[in-house]
Formats: sequence, C-alpha cells, structure tokens
Amino acid sequence: MERVNRQWLLARRPESEIVPEDFEYREQAFEEPKLEPGQIQVQSLLFRCTPAMRTMMKATSQFMPPMTIGDPVMGSIAGRVISSANSNYPVDSIISGFTSWQDYSVIDADKATPNLKPKDVSLEDFEGIYGGNSITAYFGLLSEGEPKAGDTIVVSGAAGSTGSIAAQIGKVKGCKVIGIAGGQEKCQWLLDLCKLDGAIDYKKENIETRLRELCPEGVNVYFDNVGGETLDAVIENMVPFGRIALCGQISSYNAGDALAPGPRNMMRVIYWRLRLQGFLGFDYPGEMGSALQDLAEWYKAGLIISKLDIHDGFENLPRTFMRLFDGSHFGTLLVKNDELEDDITP
Amino acid sequence: MERVNRQWLLARRPESEIVPEDFEYREQAFEEPKLEPGQIQVQSLLFRCTPAMRTMMKATSQFMPPMTIGDPVMGSIAGRVISSANSNYPVDSIISGFTSWQDYSVIDADKATPNLKPKDVSLEDFEGIYGGNSITAYFGLLSEGEPKAGDTIVVSGAAGSTGSIAAQIGKVKGCKVIGIAGGQEKCQWLLDLCKLDGAIDYKKENIETRLRELCPEGVNVYFDNVGGETLDAVIENMVPFGRIALCGQISSYNAGDALAPGPRNMMRVIYWRLRLQGFLGFDYPGEMGSALQDLAEWYKAGLIISKLDIHDGFENLPRTFMRLFDGSHFGTLLVKNDELEDDITP
Repeated sequence: MERVNRQWLLARRPESEIVPEDFEYREQAFEEPKLEPGQIQVQSLLFRCTPAMRTMMKATSQFMPPMTIGDPVMGSIAGRVISSANSNYPVDSIISGFTSWQDYSVIDADKATPNLKPKDVSLEDFEGIYGGNSITAYFGLLSEGEPKAGDTIVVSGAAGSTGSIAAQIGKVKGCKVIGIAGGQEKCQWLLDLCKLDGAIDYKKENIETRLRELCPEGVNVYFDNVGGETLDAVIENMVPFGRIALCGQISSYNAGDALAPGPRNMMRVIYWRLRLQGFLGFDYPGEMGSALQDLAEWYKAGLIISKLDIHDGFENLPRTFMRLFDGSHFGTLLVKNDELEDDITP
Repeated sequence: MERVNRQWLLARRPESEIVPEDFEYREQAFEEPKLEPGQIQVQSLLFRCTPAMRTMMKATSQFMPPMTIGDPVMGSIAGRVISSANSNYPVDSIISGFTSWQDYSVIDADKATPNLKPKDVSLEDFEGIYGGNSITAYFGLLSEGEPKAGDTIVVSGAAGSTGSIAAQIGKVKGCKVIGIAGGQEKCQWLLDLCKLDGAIDYKKENIETRLRELCPEGVNVYFDNVGGETLDAVIENMVPFGRIALCGQISSYNAGDALAPGPRNMMRVIYWRLRLQGFLGFDYPGEMGSALQDLAEWYKAGLIISKLDIHDGFENLPRTFMRLFDGSHFGTLLVKNDELEDDITP
C-alpha cells in the first residue's frame, strides 16, 4: 500500500458553532522531505485539542496568526521524529509541539523549539500532567493568582485540562477551592477525585448566588478560563485586592468575530482594587524546571490527578475537537492517531 | 443677622446628565453642636468637586454608600475647626475631609481622620498639589503603573485634577507621556505648561489612530480616568506586559444606573499579558510621607504645576459641579465659600 499523508484542512472559517463542514479531508502521497538545516519531520502520534485553536480559526485572530483556509488545521501534537536535520531532535525522539492536523509535518525545530519527551515519562503523562496545560495552570495560579494558604480560590472550566490542574494545585497550597463546571458528573468528579471544597454546576445553578453561599468569606483568587457572565459573577464575590488570572474566554470563542467583552462592572474592579492579569503559560522559561519538578512530586504523591479524554482515529479529529465547545469533553482532550496503536505508550 | 447654615441637598437621583433640579437649596438656623468625644464642627472654606461624588448619587453606589435623598450632598471640603472635642484637631486648625455641602458640618474625626493642613502650606496647595488627587496620581502611576525611564505613558482625563499630576510625574520619571483631553485649550496647556510629549483632543481626533502615530513603539503604562471606548483604544496600542492603572470610569458616570463596562477585547488582554489594576489613593498609608515629600520637591523645583479651577459662591455649587461632566472644567475644581473671602489664603 502506498504511504499517504492524511490531512484535515480548514475548509472555511466557522461562523459561530463549529460544524463538520468547516473541515475538509484530503490525502496526499507521502514525500521524503528535503530538510533544511534545523528542520525535522514528525509523525503525529497524539493530537491535542485546545480552545486556542478555535480563536486561530477567526480572521481576527490576535497574537497567534489566523489559520489559512485550505491549509491543514494548526494544532498541538505529540509525535515521533522520523527524519532530522537538527541534532537536538534525533530520529525516534518523541516531541510535543505546535504543527497541524496531518500524519506527517515538517517543522523548523530551531524556531519552534518543541519539547522533548524524557525517556522515563509515558506519552500520556508527557501530554497530560507534564503538558502545556499543566504548565499554564501552574504559572497562572501561582505566579499571577498568588494564593496564600487559607485563601479561597475559584476556578472556571474546572473539569477541563488546565482548570482541573489549577484547582488541584490550589488544594496542594492549602487553599479552599471551588470549581465551576457543566453537569453533575463533572462536579462529582471535582469533589470526589480532585478533592475540591465545592463545585458549581453552571448549567443548573446561579453562579453568583452559589458562590455567596459557598464562600461567605469572599474569593481571593479567580482562575478564569471562561470570561463573560461567569467572570461577572465571580467579580461580585471577590474580596478587596483579589487577583484574577485571565487564562481564557471560552464563553466567547464560538461568538463569530465578536471580541470577548470584559467585565460589566469596572467600578467594582476599581473600588475593590481587583487585579485582572492576562498571562500565557510559556512566559516563565527560567522557572520551567522547578514547575515540572513540583508537578512530578505532587503527581507521584497522589496529590494531583491528570484526566485524559482520549479518542481514537484521525478521521474523528473534527468531531472530537467540537467536543471542546459543547461541554462534553472532560480533562485533556486527545485524539490518538489510529495507524499508530502500538506506539501509543512507548 | 441670624447665623444660618446653608445647605445643598440631593433632591433626587440624577437620571443621566445632572441638571439643577437634582439639587435643592435650604437654610437652617445655625446650632451650637453638642459634640460627642472625638467629634469636631467644621466651617467649610473650599468645596472640592470630584467625579466620585457622581457615583455616590446612584442608588447602586458601591464601596462608598449611596447619598440619601433629602440630605446634604456628600463631598470633600477644606474647612476650619470651630468647635472641637478632639485634641488632634483643635479649634482654628484647617482640615481637609469628607463631609457635605453645607456651611457647618459635624464629623467624627476619630473615624474620618481628616488631614491637617501644615502651617507652611497655603490653603490652595493643601487642596491642590498636596491634595487627595495628587496622592491618587502618585500611587496609581508609580505603584500600579510601575513606569521605567524611557517607557511610554498615556493618561486620559489628562487636564483633570488627578490626570494632570499623573502625567507630569511621568515626565519627572523620564518617560514619554501622551495626554488625552477634550479641546484645543487643554491640549495646548498639556504641551506648553505640563511639557508632555503629545496631546490628543478626543473631541476631534481618533484616539486609536493618533496613538499609533504618536507612539509607534507602543504604550507601556496607561493611567485610566475614563474607561469605555478610550480604554479600548489604548489597549489596542499597548505592548505586551503593559500595565493599566484603573483610577476612574468617568465616561460612564452619567449613564444612569448602568454599570461601567470593561474592555471589548479581553483576548488581547490575555495574549498581550496586560494587567488591569484597580486602585484607590488612600491604600498606601505607610508611603504617604515620602509621597508628600516627593511632590513638594518636584513642585518647588518647578517640575510639576498644579492647576486650580476655583469658582466663587456657595450658591453656585451645583452648577460648578456639573462642569466636571460637560468637559468644561480644567484642573482641580473648587468652590470657594463666599462668606469667607478673607480666609481663603490663611
């Protein structure tokens, strides 16, 4: 059988909710690449679906360039180096980086600097507990939220990849932690397995009222994955000098080209001297080593768990990606490349 | 003539623009007070008009309690102690504090802790360069904006009481400073007398476009008195890791009970890692001494100027206050109590 390179292309920019027609499947013949110095060719093993990809599908994408219609969808993967012109990434090493939805990608490793999987870490842990979302949770909560033991922390998107780690780190730090998530199953998981002090089901409960009940002492730190009305509801419950770590605005990602609007009540932000701090997980390179060390220690001690929501099959990439926005995913959303079953836990 | 206590009462809550009918004039007979321990009676010399008073006229006032309909309008004054049951504030000392629009007020000085005018400071300077608005400018810009020499600073409401001091402190600190104000006269004043590097007339110019022209290097610090679309326009021009000191939201104060909405573009706040920090000027008591020392040094050296917009006559209080919101005031807006002309510069 001829070796092919399967691809999922962005067929058009999604208008609001993502639909299957926004994507197009294509097969190309596999080509041995002519690598420039520094480049590597990577075979995709796991595709990680993240909300940031949705914003890059918009023509108005900021910071990250907008995806190009007709090109493979851009996204994070874990993959195996199958051809290398870069001595830092030899053939057969496993890397995690930002490429695209296809079986084989060529990337300029000197510029993209993908992460190298250590030999003693499984592929699941490499994409899970030691992945970008954990790093984002770690620095967002600790460096920007600055929780002190005894503080009350609220995390939205708490059953998601980043939120669940942020919430659990809050518990490690001796805080009271309330998670906001959609549905009974997720809330029960937050209480039973993540050991949070409270969980709010935003589909059934009024967040502002429930926070007032659960946190009569007020909220010191809010780790915000959601924005919108959830942000408003938490702000109304914050104490003076509270800190808000702005990680995402998932409530607005499917809202066409509309920009994500900020809080409705800026006078409260002023009078309560709140801080809203945007951040990105990769802004702390000097502290990355100690972050990974902390995460490893807590993970091995059973203080934090990592939930992976793994789906099978390259052909299911668009449908799995859509789960990010309908609330049906749970933990880190990964798609395993079906041709590579034996490689999944090297 | 019988001694009277003239008062301006809040007749009703202003709906949007303030109109004279929102106030009611009343005369009461002067009464010798029976002071409780700690209380003082103060004769008003100067009334300071501030935007914060407008938010306290709303039933939805936060942090500061809403004013009561039928009571004297609450506001800051400078006054002379005429009767005292508090040894820290003897008779004839001059204080600055939060009381109300009447000739004579009784306040609990132990709770309200008004500021005492030093003997070698004129009443104008006490309410001007050493007043609350300068303190607010000082801490907001330096502690929250954290400008470094060479940074680019933008100040909105730059011809106002707080904004003009913040802008000039930016110049003292070796920064490039752009002021946003309404009208040619104010902009010329910012350039000629405050020595700013640029001024934008928001009534005639597109702020976002003009900032791009004036600051191609981007904005590091924004001192925000205005909120609304001005905040949006500055955010679009900020550099990564820029700091926004949230001082006021004057663009929304006349908008009935509507809350002041935040930025339209939170994704930019996140991706650019911007910080929005609410603050109040009195939150830095430990540093107040050095702040006043710095202000005195800069003022005496001619590095900063203080513009007072003084109007005459108790009867003009409501009309003068309205100038805060129609853009016609300029600097610190004060009303001199007409019966006390000889006392104005003790």
